[in-house]
Parts: sequence; structure tokens; C-alpha cells
Amino acid sequence: MDEVYKCTKCDWSISIERYIWRCPRCNAPIQIISDKHLEISLKDLKLGRGINGFISILPKLIRMSPISLGEGSTAIVLREVLGVKILFKLEYLNPTGSFKDRGSATTISAALSTGITRVIEDSSGNAGLSIACYASAAGISSRIYAPIDAPRGKIELMKLFGADIKLMPTRNEAARAAILDKEGIYVGHRWNPYAIEGVKIEAYELIMQQDQIPTAIIVPTASGMHILGLYKGFKELIERGDIREMPRFYAVQHEDYSPLAIKLGRKDYLKRESPQTIVNGLRLTDVPRIGEIVNVIKRSEGDVVLVNDHDVVQALKVLIHMGFVVEPTSATAYAALNKLINDGIVEKGETVVIPLTGSGLKMTKKLIDVLPK
Amino acid sequence: MDEVYKCTKCDWSISIERYIWRCPRCNAPIQIISDKHLEISLKDLKLGRGINGFISILPKLIRMSPISLGEGSTAIVLREVLGVKILFKLEYLNPTGSFKDRGSATTISAALSTGITRVIEDSSGNAGLSIACYASAAGISSRIYAPIDAPRGKIELMKLFGADIKLMPTRNEAARAAILDKEGIYVGHRWNPYAIEGVKIEAYELIMQQDQIPTAIIVPTASGMHILGLYKGFKELIERGDIREMPRFYAVQHEDYSPLAIKLGRKDYLKRESPQTIVNGLRLTDVPRIGEIVNVIKRSEGDVVLVNDHDVVQALKVLIHMGFVVEPTSATAYAALNKLINDGIVEKGETVVIPLTGSGLKMTKKLIDVLPK
Repeated sequence: MDEVYKCTKCDWSISIERYIWRCPRCNAPIQIISDKHLEISLKDLKLGRGINGFISILPKLIRMSPISLGEGSTAIVLREVLGVKILFKLEYLNPTGSFKDRGSATTISAALSTGITRVIEDSSGNAGLSIACYASAAGISSRIYAPIDAPRGKIELMKLFGADIKLMPTRNEAARAAILDKEGIYVGHRWNPYAIEGVKIEAYELIMQQDQIPTAIIVPTASGMHILGLYKGFKELIERGDIREMPRFYAVQHEDYSPLAIKLGRKDYLKRESPQTIVNGLRLTDVPRIGEIVNVIKRSEGDVVLVNDHDVVQALKVLIHMGFVVEPTSATAYAALNKLINDGIVEKGETVVIPLTGSGLKMTKKLIDVLPK
Repeated sequence: MDEVYKCTKCDWSISIERYIWRCPRCNAPIQIISDKHLEISLKDLKLGRGINGFISILPKLIRMSPISLGEGSTAIVLREVLGVKILFKLEYLNPTGSFKDRGSATTISAALSTGITRVIEDSSGNAGLSIACYASAAGISSRIYAPIDAPRGKIELMKLFGADIKLMPTRNEAARAAILDKEGIYVGHRWNPYAIEGVKIEAYELIMQQDQIPTAIIVPTASGMHILGLYKGFKELIERGDIREMPRFYAVQHEDYSPLAIKLGRKDYLKRESPQTIVNGLRLTDVPRIGEIVNVIKRSEGDVVLVNDHDVVQALKVLIHMGFVVEPTSATAYAALNKLINDGIVEKGETVVIPLTGSGLKMTKKLIDVLPK
């Protein structure tokens, strides 16, 4: 089967090779459909070489000129808490300190192979840094729209990579402005289908690196790139026959910013959008792929789990004490696990994946500020 | 063969199991001798699970209660420069952002299995952060002696892990004070043999992750833990028959701090010890294992390569542009490669390993300060 770029909403589809990030007919997000994953053996996939080790299951535009900075193949650390096995997937050990690098590697590879010379991104910090870094490696220029209160250190690092930075009043305004900028190609991870292809590799690694089959996966969720990529990876693994059952997907959002709680009609949810939260990475409310995320939750019999700053600080404290140098957004998943165990939804004997998404090394000062002395 | 703890200088040796960091008879460093590496197949070693994936080639004290935070299995990125293949080994993607985590995992595991409750370390930053983190994970308390000008962010992170910090006027004074502290066990990487066991795994990974056999390895060298560990790993791989020839080992030091240039009788070397350099990690001049390092250089037909701040800034600029978020000390190896190529010592067609040792995410501000705008 040829690779097909297909609209997630209308029936538009195409198989020619150009960089596409939304449906030219109805403006909905695009998905890439292929059966490359049915043609390979897991033994042909190699850990420790970035996307190059998984190149045979990636779309053609990525295979043509892969740009790798050693993303992925992150370690798994097994811990047991209250009878539950946790597989911590250390996504904060990616090249720029977040799982976003998986998507940047595939996105910038696709951009490079289609001759794009400038990319445009919107970001609260991690995605912008990641795109700026990979663009620099590929010799492509980058422009990043970020909210004015994005962490200073991340912004300065983007500039080191030669990124042109545009600061906007809020996260959502940064997102809107980036799409309107016509001086480059928009590679925003909220939309682009290549980022999802990069993240799906994480699911393969989870099965290749250890013997436990996860029963649940808890993913901090804003744009949905992470949860959609993991789901796609597990779907392919089931189609291949490597595993039998889909793990339940739990999306974690902040009490004050939960488009998923609204979409799922959660009665206990009061929309607040308070301007202050320590969880920068989850402040996005304009989510083009929200329908797809809801499908993942429903089909896998998962849910959305809501946390607040207090839960996150407590979880962060425990994670740091365990030796994981992560940022507050990463701690939301551990906070959510505590809730799921308390509520009897995750049970003893289960194997739960918690991807630790972003590095605390980029925000030492913030860690010191938010953690109790 | 039983594992033997053997003095590197006199003929003292012992096979009982207690934590030993120097010879009780003559105070010289200790080495661990074993033939565990001859008993396994490379297929039994697993990537992506920290030291747990390599546990069968590690000494008994480490095997008894391994503490892993997902260290090692760092990605390799291949680049070609002037006809030379470079295998960048991304050691900055270790749990606390430096290769030191490899040694901390094995050292703290050995400390835990011998019932030690407090560890003492001296460090310019990375090793202290690493030990503080692993000690926290193991439930062991830590005390770190650091020079007063150690990077602030690293010191603050050590405190987050509950470390007791003692600031000393210079790097060498920190080293001296740590050894005199009798309120815990000294785990300094300059001395301890367990750290070398952790680092040797990096050599195995280099062979397992890709097909090129390195002809040369360029290692920024202070205490020698990194170069000695890599050499030990390659020695084991040769004994096992996985590779035939030892790569040449080039130790990189700073023009103003080179105990190796003195020891090797380099005529062009003028000892300066200038107080200012951007290469914090190489300011150590009191090196107990210097004799062993000299042996590695001589036996492998390598050399010491001297660099200065100007060389390092230029190399750092290139590495950042390539997408590697590293600290200045990591850039010394790339600066050294340029010299070795210019001098005709490394030739076209060679395959050279450059371990990128430490993360720039811990010192964003310094990167911005030292790099030209």
C-alpha cells in the first residue's frame, strides 16, 4: 500500500509527496496512513541511533533525508508503588530535554526533504527549543512564537540556535499568530502529522526494551502529539501481533485548563483558565486534534484525569527524591497515578507507563521556587 | 576466577566484600580484576535499562543491590568532518546531564550493598550533582565539597537532592577536604574503582549500537575516570574477541591545567594554572590515577592534546550549531579533533569517538556569556 495523507474529518486524501499540515479542503488535521509497519521484524529496529534505527517504519518524506540528534531510545526505569509496577520512560533525556524532540526529528526531516528553508512554530518553551535545535542542525531557519512568560532560559537557548523569537501576551495568542505567519512553513506540533510519526516510536521502544506489557499509560496532554503518537504506535504493534490488547490511555490535564473535560462533558468541571499555574506545558486550550484525543480515550477505555498545582508540587517532590530531574509538567502524570490508585481505577498488579516528559535542568530556578524547603 | 580488589601500585589484594577506595597498605588507587566479561554473550546485554541491562559484567557489590536511574545507553550520532567519521556519543543525555552518572550508579550501588549511610564527594559540579541524585534515590545522605565558583545552578540542584554542600576556595582544596572528612565514606570518582566499572559499559555500547570499529577516542580528562573506564571496556572487548585492535586514546586537557603534559614530559608545556578558564571540569591537577592514565595513552599509542579557551569557544559554537546542547568541557574533545586532523595525526577514513560529556541545559547562562553573538 502506498502512503496516504488523509484528512481526519472529510474524505480528502492524497499520496503525492509534499509537506502538508492540514486539509486543503476543510482545514482539519491530517493523518498519515501506511502499512510499512507490517513489513518489518522488530529485530530490524535498532535502539540508540535516533530515528535512523526506526527509519523503515517512518513515512517516505522522513526516510528521504533523516535529521537525527539521537532522539528516543530513552531509558526505562522500573519502580513499584503500592503494588503497581511503574515503567518510567525517561523522555526528559532527549537531546533538548523533552519528548518533543521525537516529533522535531521527523518534522524537520520532512521539511528538509521538501526543500523548506524556514519553519514557524508556537510553543510554551520545550517545542520551540526542540524545533530551533533541529532546524539549526538541518540548516533551516526558524521563527518561534512564545508567550511572554515562557521560561527565560529556554528562550535564550532558542536564540543560541539562531531562532527568531516573537513574544506574545498568551499561549493561545502565540498559537494564532504562528499560523498566520506566511514567511515560512508552519510546523506546529498541534497540527503536523509528522510529529505523531516520531512519537509512535516510543511505543515500539516500550515493547523492545523490557518484557512487561503495559495495562495503562498516563500522558500529560496539551496538543495531543504525545498521546496520539503513543496510541498510533500501540495500534501498529497490535496489528503486527506483537501485543494483543490496547492499554488504557489516561490524559492528564490541569483543573484550570481542560478542553478534554469540557469535550467529554465531565460534570465536575468548572472552566477557570486562571492565569497562574506552574504547569506551563498544559496551558493550551486551542487543540485542533481534540476529536482524535477523545477517540483514543474512549476506544482504549481510559479517561481524562485532572490535577492542580498542589498535587503537582507533591508529585514533583517525590519524583526529585527518587532521582528524576524533571519539570513540573512531567509530575502531572505521577500525580494522576496517585489519584487513579486512590480511586481504585488502577489496581494492584497492573503495569503502568509514565513518560517523564521534560527535563528539570532547563528550569532549576523554578524547581527551587516551587518545591517546599 | 573470583573478583579481586588489587592495589595499582604494591602487591596488596583482597577478595572479601567491603567498600574499598584505596589500598590500605600504600594508599594507592585500587582496581577490580574479574573475568565475568568472558562468561557472557553480547546478546545478553540489554540497551535502555541502565546498569541493569549490563549487570552480568559488573562486580558483585554492584550486582547485589543495583540502583539505576536509566544511565547509559546514550545515543550515537554519526557525522563526517573532513573525511573523518565521528561517532558522537551523547553522554550529556544521562540522568543528571553528564557521563558521571555511569560511575555514580555503580558507586552508590556498591555503597548501598555494604550498608553505607553517608557518602562524601568532591566536585566542580557534575560529579557532585550526580552523586547527590543517586544517593537520594538510594536513601543515602550525601555531602559534597565544591569550589566556591562552581556553577550556581548545579549547587542548587544538589541541595534539592538533600546534599550537604561545603564550598571551598579552589577545586584542589575541595578534593583535599573531602578525603579528610570522616563522617561518611569517600566516593570521589578520582579514586573509587566502582566508577570505572560503570564507565566501561560505554565501550560495550559503542560496539553494540553500530557497526564501525573506532580507530581513536578523544576524551576530556581530569580525574581519569572516563578514559580509564573506556579503556577497560575496550580491553575486555578485545579479550572477548569482539574487536581486534585497541583504539588510540587521546586525553584532552587545558593548556593551563595539564598534569598529563608534565608527566609525559611535553617540552612545549608551561605550567600556568591561571585562575580563569571556561572549562570548569578540567581544573583538577591532583590526580591519583595519573600513572594509569599515562599507561593508557602509551599502550594505545595515543597522546595528550592541549586546548585553550579560544579553541573551546570555537568548537562549542560549531557543536551548538550542529544541534548538540553541551557545556564547554564537552567541546574540548571536538577542539582536540580539529588539532589532530590539522596535524595529520587523525587521518581521512578514520572513525573517531567523541563522547559529549556534559549538558549545556545546566548552564544556559554561561553558554550565552561565552558564545560570540
